Amino acid sequence: MKDASTTTGFLREAVARFVRKREWEQFHSPKNLSMSVSIEAAELMEIFQWMDVGEARSLSSKPEMRRRIEEEIADIAIYVLSLCNTLNIDLSSCITRKIDKNRKRYPVKKCKGKWL
Amino acid sequence: MKDASTTTGFLREAVARFVRKREWEQFHSPKNLSMSVSIEAAELMEIFQWMDVGEARSLSSKPEMRRRIEEEIADIAIYVLSLCNTLNIDLSSCITRKIDKNRKRYPVKKCKGKWL
Amino acid sequence: MKDASTTTGFLREAVARFVRKREWEQFHSPKNLSMSVSIEAAELMEIFQWMDVGEARSLSSKPEMRRRIEEEIADIAIYVLSLCNTLNIDLSSCITRKIDKNRKRYPVKKCKGKWL
Amino acid sequence: MKDASTTTGFLREAVARFVRKREWEQFHSPKNLSMSVSIEAAELMEIFQWMDVGEARSLSSKPEMRRRIEEEIADIAIYVLSLCNTLNIDLSSCITRKIDKNRKRYPVKKCKGKWL
Repeated sequence: MKDASTTTGFLREAVARFVRKREWEQFHSPKNLSMSVSIEAAELMEIFQWMDVGEARSLSSKPEMRRRIEEEIADIAIYVLSLCNTLNIDLSSCITRKIDKNRKRYPVKKCKGKWL
Repeated sequence: MKDASTTTGFLREAVARFVRKREWEQFHSPKNLSMSVSIEAAELMEIFQWMDVGEARSLSSKPEMRRRIEEEIADIAIYVLSLCNTLNIDLSSCITRKIDKNRKRYPVKKCKGKWL
Repeated sequence: MKDASTTTGFLREAVARFVRKREWEQFHSPKNLSMSVSIEAAELMEIFQWMDVGEARSLSSKPEMRRRIEEEIADIAIYVLSLCNTLNIDLSSCITRKIDKNRKRYPVKKCKGKWL
Repeated sequence: MKDASTTTGFLREAVARFVRKREWEQFHSPKNLSMSVSIEAAELMEIFQWMDVGEARSLSSKPEMRRRIEEEIADIAIYVLSLCNTLNIDLSSCITRKIDKNRKRYPVKKCKGKWL
């Protein structure tokens, strides 16, 4: 697993370099990038569109489907990272801060095993 | 910047612990999580919905707006990480592999300063 | 059922009047409206986010949920109608033309009872 | 303009017939259809993804782009109509009711020429 040793900063820089070389910073405005994230999220959903919730779980282990899922997840993540680059936002801090907030909002006692 | 030193694996584990404690793995099926990513992406878009592309760029630096953007980005990222946990997908590998693919698909010579 | 007697043109005009009175045509550009449709679609999805496919079917008949669904559907439709107004697109023609196309693309013999 | 004379009921029935003949009612659950609307909305957004707001306005008149927009709008509308069929929701009533509600929520005096 590369996730164990790869920093968010490293991934951000890889995305930044790709965008910079193509001079695409001009298109990567926050408005456009928010659309991009949403468009890629929809492509991920398309994979599961007609499946049952359980079916989606089991079919996701098939190699062909797995590859598609991995590509769509990457597309979403790449645009999220580019947005952080554009706005100079520290993603790791945002995530840990939001998890802290969610911990208070959804106390274990009240939420265990229940959605909503 | 915490991004310089925080690994994807660390963030994944923080999300996994949060989900596990609430016994929410049952709801975090790939189908549901793909919807969640899309829903959060829409909440990010909502911030920029009526702005001009340039306006979105300049308004994003305002503290109040910045905080909203950071929260929505975190929500998207958290669901992406949970999806990786559910499917045991290595996010860092997906991202670097996809950037490699995009490098071939969008050669600098052809794409510099142009979209599509 | 008002659907039996209400024309698309009537609904379009109701939306146009609402927008015109508020001088919102300036914001209702195709780009912004495509975001709006997507944002409202996400709010509709949010209702069903954690439900099973069958659960969503049965819960949809509950009055409180029904009202929420109706509101979100209306929001989507209103932005679709505004987009047609902005671009002077005849929605009824688009729909019947697309159904004709789908009829050829998804022949009954091949598609009966199967998705994809 | 066919919109002047085509009722929502007529369009609903055309969609219902298409779905019924393929025995697709089993897939057209509210949860799945909410995803479908969102997926099609994203395909519409994709057209405008990298354009400026003004650019989107002017480019939309080009025949090739117009055809694409019309197709995506039709796809969104078809799924909205199918959702109304599935849940037995009167779309025209929803729309007029929501416009009434919006009229109170966004009084002309307060909202003229301003978003938010």
